[in-house]
Parts: sequence; structure tokens; C-alpha cells
Amino acid sequence: MDGLHDSVSLKFRTKKEVSLFGAENVVFKPKCMNIEAGKYVVLMNVNDAKIYGLMPGDRVQLKKGRKSITCVVDLTKTLVKPKVMGIFKEVKELLNLKKGDSIQVSALPTLPSVEAIVRKIHNEKLTDKQISSIINDVVHNNLTEAEVSAFLVAAEINGLSLDETVALTNAMVNSGEVLNLNKKFVLDKHCIGGVAGNRTTMVVVPIIAAAGFYIPKTSSRAITSPAGTADTMEVLAEVEFSMEELKKLVTKAKGAIVWGGGVNIAPADDKMIQLRRPLHLDPLGVMLASILGKKKAVGANHLIIDIPTGRGAKVEDVNEARNLARKFKEVTDRLNIKTNVLITDGSEPVGNGIGPILEARDVLMVLAGDGPLDLREKALLLAGKLLELTGKYKVGEGYGVAKSILDSGKALKKMRQIIELQGGNGKVKVSDLQPGKYTYDIKATKKGRVEHIDNKNISRIARAAGAPFNKGAGIYLHKVKGDFVKKGEAILTIYAESETKLSQALKVAKTFPPFLMEKMFIDELL
Amino acid sequence: MDGLHDSVSLKFRTKKEVSLFGAENVVFKPKCMNIEAGKYVVLMNVNDAKIYGLMPGDRVQLKKGRKSITCVVDLTKTLVKPKVMGIFKEVKELLNLKKGDSIQVSALPTLPSVEAIVRKIHNEKLTDKQISSIINDVVHNNLTEAEVSAFLVAAEINGLSLDETVALTNAMVNSGEVLNLNKKFVLDKHCIGGVAGNRTTMVVVPIIAAAGFYIPKTSSRAITSPAGTADTMEVLAEVEFSMEELKKLVTKAKGAIVWGGGVNIAPADDKMIQLRRPLHLDPLGVMLASILGKKKAVGANHLIIDIPTGRGAKVEDVNEARNLARKFKEVTDRLNIKTNVLITDGSEPVGNGIGPILEARDVLMVLAGDGPLDLREKALLLAGKLLELTGKYKVGEGYGVAKSILDSGKALKKMRQIIELQGGNGKVKVSDLQPGKYTYDIKATKKGRVEHIDNKNISRIARAAGAPFNKGAGIYLHKVKGDFVKKGEAILTIYAESETKLSQALKVAKTFPPFLMEKMFIDELL
Repeated sequence: MDGLHDSVSLKFRTKKEVSLFGAENVVFKPKCMNIEAGKYVVLMNVNDAKIYGLMPGDRVQLKKGRKSITCVVDLTKTLVKPKVMGIFKEVKELLNLKKGDSIQVSALPTLPSVEAIVRKIHNEKLTDKQISSIINDVVHNNLTEAEVSAFLVAAEINGLSLDETVALTNAMVNSGEVLNLNKKFVLDKHCIGGVAGNRTTMVVVPIIAAAGFYIPKTSSRAITSPAGTADTMEVLAEVEFSMEELKKLVTKAKGAIVWGGGVNIAPADDKMIQLRRPLHLDPLGVMLASILGKKKAVGANHLIIDIPTGRGAKVEDVNEARNLARKFKEVTDRLNIKTNVLITDGSEPVGNGIGPILEARDVLMVLAGDGPLDLREKALLLAGKLLELTGKYKVGEGYGVAKSILDSGKALKKMRQIIELQGGNGKVKVSDLQPGKYTYDIKATKKGRVEHIDNKNISRIARAAGAPFNKGAGIYLHKVKGDFVKKGEAILTIYAESETKLSQALKVAKTFPPFLMEKMFIDELL
Repeated sequence: MDGLHDSVSLKFRTKKEVSLFGAENVVFKPKCMNIEAGKYVVLMNVNDAKIYGLMPGDRVQLKKGRKSITCVVDLTKTLVKPKVMGIFKEVKELLNLKKGDSIQVSALPTLPSVEAIVRKIHNEKLTDKQISSIINDVVHNNLTEAEVSAFLVAAEINGLSLDETVALTNAMVNSGEVLNLNKKFVLDKHCIGGVAGNRTTMVVVPIIAAAGFYIPKTSSRAITSPAGTADTMEVLAEVEFSMEELKKLVTKAKGAIVWGGGVNIAPADDKMIQLRRPLHLDPLGVMLASILGKKKAVGANHLIIDIPTGRGAKVEDVNEARNLARKFKEVTDRLNIKTNVLITDGSEPVGNGIGPILEARDVLMVLAGDGPLDLREKALLLAGKLLELTGKYKVGEGYGVAKSILDSGKALKKMRQIIELQGGNGKVKVSDLQPGKYTYDIKATKKGRVEHIDNKNISRIARAAGAPFNKGAGIYLHKVKGDFVKKGEAILTIYAESETKLSQALKVAKTFPPFLMEKMFIDELL
């Protein structure tokens, strides 16, 4: 039923048009609603709207003295009378409205950002200026959720070009604060996630910093997983720092591991993520800009990206992973970030612990030269590739350099310094970190080999047990893929901080099995 | 940057999953916010959200006793404390919450309607059930504006199939009340609009009713034009009636002209239009369903659709008009509505008056056998084609039948009956209808022929003069396309009900010229 709209020429309300109509500096009495609206919206009586030719979604400018603000019009039949305008807390405070005040209201033309969104819906390529108008208005709450959602859907369906993606990345960087270290080597790493226990960052950062490179790592908290790097680091130290504080940390220790949400980088992205999630909106260009904007904002110029791929991972197919890797490269080339993208095996969890405390224990053990081998090896691989990317080491040398830093104890020492600087106990021992005391072992019901540990179900169970909110909740894997188990041997232990949470986790484990045993005899055709 | 998401398999929160996690009948204390939210939303403390694994946009079910309601979760750090849930007026009233009450809260799986919207974003064809889940949730305020907006953008870009459009139409019909006349002949007409003064409905309805056919006409009020049929009819009679009242009117007089917004037909459509306008979203399938749902809801089974086409009209190109006409036919065929679509000349206004009172005068004059010829002829054409569509008259006969009904005075008599039944003065005379007393003549600055009257600029000027809110505001066209005028002769008169509005209209007329004069000498190449 489509094909008719190609010829529709888009017409927007211009300044000229608006200045000639309707609400030209009309005086209203404010009625303060004793609540926040979460956005800049005003309530207008339907009759006033008719008189001034305004409709829901139109923008008006409110002025009191020299202060002014742009708001979206919403209509009401009952809440405010004609000539009265319903004002929410945010606007009241911004205009500093007091009893008896009056406000001047004038209609506004179509916002350039809204015009840009409409153009994107009609599959036009947007200019840098148009893209930054959208991001700017997202940050300043000038767009309605319906409008931001429309942009995301249009970006999802029509896609964003490389130019648009680069512009979006830059706009996101400019939407918040940036870290100016002004160093030739600012290193960073990113993992697209989806693998339980995969806490390589906390091993890579101290190795890289100990090697003498700056690595101001901002990490996320868990959204749907049992722990993000920020949640796990929080077991050992503070993670909420301002940009200024981050600069001090990195200047002292070269490395830091902080929560990205605390440093006000790319705030536009955080706002969009809230709308993306419920609608499963993951437009590739927006996702790339979201990730790379945060790297650019801390001034990263050398970057390793990890794309775990395989059964149960975010990306299941290797060709899809390669395609995504190419997209990352295209954009980072344009951003002047020297980048290597690694496609790693993401089909099984990494490390033995899942959940903040259990993961922090794994990390400390690896830094001490012990701990789960898979976590150690993956961290060394990533650190090595990152070292090679600087050009200071030949290709093939990086792993060895990383290994010697780890084995010498320099990485552990560096981590202790970082923990100390971030307000934690630099002398922390593994035995200080105690997981939840309510535990349950899931045992093998017969002997055999473990075929697969399911990332998603492991996450579900660990979350039901209370992770990441309860730091001690989670899962410890005694056995991994390929291990042989005897009947009755524990394959994993669930940890929780309360009996209720433990029983909830058990219920989940019954519905979503955390592992599969190899079957010798699969089926027969008789 | 696209092409990567084709392989993304969509995963939604299932009932099974939700029942195993988080907020399973947790008890909260309500904190009543003394305001309407305009939607079913609750405020939750961010810490609670973490504990129960809820995120903004997730749905929860609130229960008090036997009453329950589905709400969208919004988060706050300050407005409500942990274990307290912020409740807005609508929800408070629906659950009949009183001081000291507590509410039971449980997490809900992804709404089927949200799942359907996500599938539409991914260009899947939706089933009838999925379409009706969307419309149902729109009507019951169960979807956020971000979600409805996402659906409209997806429908705009990916298009809706014929099946989807038919399903959407039926869902819209089912979203509101319907008129059950149970007659073999229920006639209707529709015009897609965009032409100033084009009040044919008010001539066609009495002709058709006088011919003995039912015609329960629901009309719209102006949105961006100086008058809708409902605005003009309101000059002569009441237009706001319930469905029950409409049934009584039509049973008595066979015809009625009421405001569609009053009878609660297809309310889902009204809600979507509010979101469509600011984003210029006019997905063809949604537009067809919006129009035809309203015809189906009054039980229409014979329908004339008018697509005014040409310079300055909604559709400017004849091929585009033909394409649109075919789409109308495809859908009406499936809805069992016998339909004829007429493509008419929409390049100039129809009738002389523009604005409610000025148009009502034209209509009364035409019904009395006088008035603007173009309005008379267009109405006779439409009425004639509609009569032929019933099969009671041969093709070619309709116009003559309509003309004899009009010339005999039967149509005027019928209109007087309709006016009387709708609470107006059935004996109304043209001289009873006086337009605004503030007037200004726009005169020819030199002699010549009128080349074009501009629909859009005429609308702009009439609206600036106060139409449709001020019933007496508008424009009277003394001259139309092709007329020869002397220097200083009035081409049109602007009417307003106040000096301010008149001067505003004049300002607009200077920027947006209402007419063009023919140029004999256009240009030369020397």
C-alpha cells in the first residue's frame, strides 16, 4: 500500500508563518502543577488552543523577563481554565515563577530537529547540522518521547549512512563532557557484551597502565546481565567520579575503571537507550555512535573491540560478526581512532564466577597469577593486541609483553594503586570478598561430559539470585564445557544473600537449564 | 550502515519468564500524585526497579482487591521512596485507592501489541489479531506515545499490506460504537479535503435523503482549514450527538450531518492523529483505515469519494490521485462497501464563501436554487453519482434526478427538517446569517484576468481572520479564476469579528497572496 508518498513534499511551519499567526506574545497566568513532568511541557485549555491555532505537540516559547524556555503544548479541558497555562516543576524553576507572575507565550516554528526527524522518516540523508540538532534537543529535553522514538525507528528501518553515523558520534561526544589528556597514546577497549563472567577489562586496564599507557576506562553497569564491569569494580572501589576526578585519577595512575554514567559523557545516548530498550530498537548506526562516542569522549586514539560470537552470544553468526567488525572499522577510521576488532568465542561463559563479588575474586586471582585460565588467556590476548596497536611493539610481541607484566606482579600492583586511588582498599585479599551465604549446588544427575554452559540462562539464574544488586549473589562454575563429571558431582553453585532469592533462582534454574550434558546416543531411525 | 539486523531474532519477555522473576505480587504503598498523567503510568524508586529487575517502559499490573490495571513503569530518584509507588489520578480513580490502602504489584510480559509493533518495525506482516491488539491498546491508553509513534513510523516506512489495512480498518471500527440501521442502502460520501469553501456535503446529504436513502453523515471539524463541514453545519444546528441520538435523527429524516468526534466512532483514530500531525506522519494504510473505518462504523454500504486534485490541492498530480483512488477501491471492495472514487478539479476554491457563516450562506442559497454555480454543479455531480451507485438509477441518470430534487425545493425542505431535528431553526433565512462586521476589500491594482485563487493562502488568511473559531470570520470571493476585473474592483472581502483579527489577516495576506493575475507578457530573451 505504499509508494504514494514519494511525491509528498514536506512542508514545515516557518518562522515567517508563525510570526503572522496566533499566539504572538499572548499573556497567560501560570498555574503551577506541584509535580515534575520529566519534560518541558505546558498544559493549555482546548479553547485557547483553538483561538491561537495551536495543537498538541506544537511548541511555544514561554518568557518571564529575560528568561525563556521552549515547551511542548498539551491540551486539557478541565485542568486549566482559558488564559491560564499549566506549568510543571521543571519549567517553574527554570523561569523562577512566583505567585502573581504572568508569562508571555508565543508560537514557535517547527523545530529544526523535528524537521530533520521527518526527513529521516522520508529516507533523506541528514546533514551534520541536522544530526546535531536532534542530539542537542534530546539532551535538552526539547523533544517528546514520540519524536525521539520516531527518529530511532526511522534510523532502524532506513539505516544511517557512514556520514550520518560519524556525525551522530560527534554530536554525542559534544552533548556531554570530554576528557582532554592531550596524549599521543590514550588506549581503550570495548566488548559488546553478552558473555557471563567476561571481566577482562579489570585485567587489561592494569596491564596497559603498568605498560605505561593511559587507559581511562569508562564502563557500564549491568542492564540485563548479572554484572557490568562497573558493578564488579564497585566491589573493590568507588566507581562514580566526575570528569575532573577521572582526569586526576588517570593522571596519577594512567589507568582508571569508572562508571560511564557518572562522568556525563554522551548523555544523549543514555536518554535514547531508555526508549530503545522497550521497543528492541538497536539501529546499527545509533549503536556504533553510542559505543564509539564514549571512547571518543575520553580521547581514546587506540582501541580494541571484542565481539564475542557464537551459540547464545549477542552475535551468533561469524559472518554477522565480521560485518559488524567492518562497520566499527569504517567509523573509527573516520574518527581517527586506530582500531583492531577481535571476534572471540562467545559461546560459553568466561571465568568461573558470575555476579559482582564472584567475578571480582576471579579478577584478583588472575592478577595474582592464578585464577581461571580462560579469563587470564583472553585478557592477555586483548592486552597484547592493544599493545601492538600502539606500534611500540611488533605484531606477535604483544601477548608476551602483557604476560610478563602480569607474571611480574606489576599488573596486580597497578590494580592495587587504582583501587586505592578510587577510594577502595588497595590491600584487599580474595578472602575479604565473601559471596552470599545462601548457596545451592546443582549436581550432575549422571556421569558424563559437559557439552554447553548457556550464557543466557546463567544470566537469568544469577539475576534471579539477586545479581547485580546484591553484590554477593551469582553463580560459581565448578565445571566448564568439555569437563567430565561424576554422578552427584557439583557442576555449579548458586549464591544468594537471602533464602527467598535463592529459592527464586532455583525456580528459574528449573525452567531455564544452565547447562547441557553431552548425549552419546542422540536418536535412531527404526 | 544497515543490513545487519535481518538476522536478529526477536525475543520478548514471556509470561513464563516474568512469573519467575522479580516483582511477583510485591506490596507497595501508593503515593497519590494530585494530577492526571494522561496515561497509565506509575512512578517507582530507582532502587526498587533495580531489585525487581524493572526498567522504564516495562509494564506492571497493579491490583487492589478485585480491581487491576496495567501501567507503564517510570523511574524517579526523589519523588517516591522505596516501597512506595507514585500513582496518578486516573489510576487512583480506577482502583478506587484510599488512604492507608496498599497495592499488589507484579511484572508483566511484553504486551502482544508492543511485540506486534516491534515486528512491524522489522517489516513483518502482521496478523489481524496483532493489528487489533495494537488498536485495542491505543484505545485503552495501554501504549506509550513512544510506542504508538514507533508503529506509525514503521507503517509509514514499511507500508501496510492490503490485508493489514483491512484489519486496521476493522479494528478501528471495533474500537468504538457503531450505527446499526440494518438497511440495504446506507449511503455516504467523503472528500479528502484541501479545497476552500468546498461544502458539497451540506447539499448532497439533503438531496440523497430526499431521494429516500439513508445517509448518516459524520463530518470533521477543521484542523488546518478555515472550516470543516461540522463547523459550517454548526452555524445552522447542533452537531454534537451521541450514537443513539444519531440513530434517532437518521431514522426520522433519513439524513443527518453531525460531528464525527461526538459519536465515538473509531476513537483509536483520533488518538493516533494527535501523534501523526507533529511528525507529518500520514501512512497510506493508516489514512485509508482512518477514513473508511468511520464509514464502516455508520454502516455505509454505498460510498462516493471525492479526491480534489490539482495546483495547491492535497494531491497535485492526477496519476497520484488515480493511484490513491485504486487503493480506496481495493480496501472498500474488501469491506463490502460499493464505492465510486471521483477525481475532481481541486485547483481553485469551490463556492464564494470561506469560513463557517459565509459557507453556510452559500449552501442555503444553492439549496434555494441560487448561489454559486460551481458549488451547485459539484454537489449535483456527487449526488448523481451516488444515486447511480445504488443501482436504482442508470448510469447517466443520476445527475438529472439530483437536479430535479434540488430544483423542486425538496432538498431545501429536507435540509430544513434536518436542521430542525438537530436543534436549529428550520426556518433560517440567508439574511439571518451575518458574517463579521470588520471587513476589508482586496482590490485589483490593475485591470486583467484572475489566473488563480490559491487554496492554501486563502485558508491561511481566513484562519488568521479567526475562522473557524469565529464563525463570522472568513473570505468572500467576488471573482474567481478566469473572471475579468477592472482596476480598483474588489476581488475578495476579508471578514473578521474584531479589528485585531482583521489586521492580522491583512498582514498574512501581504505575505501569502490569495490570488494571481494573468500576465500577458511573461519574459523575453534578448
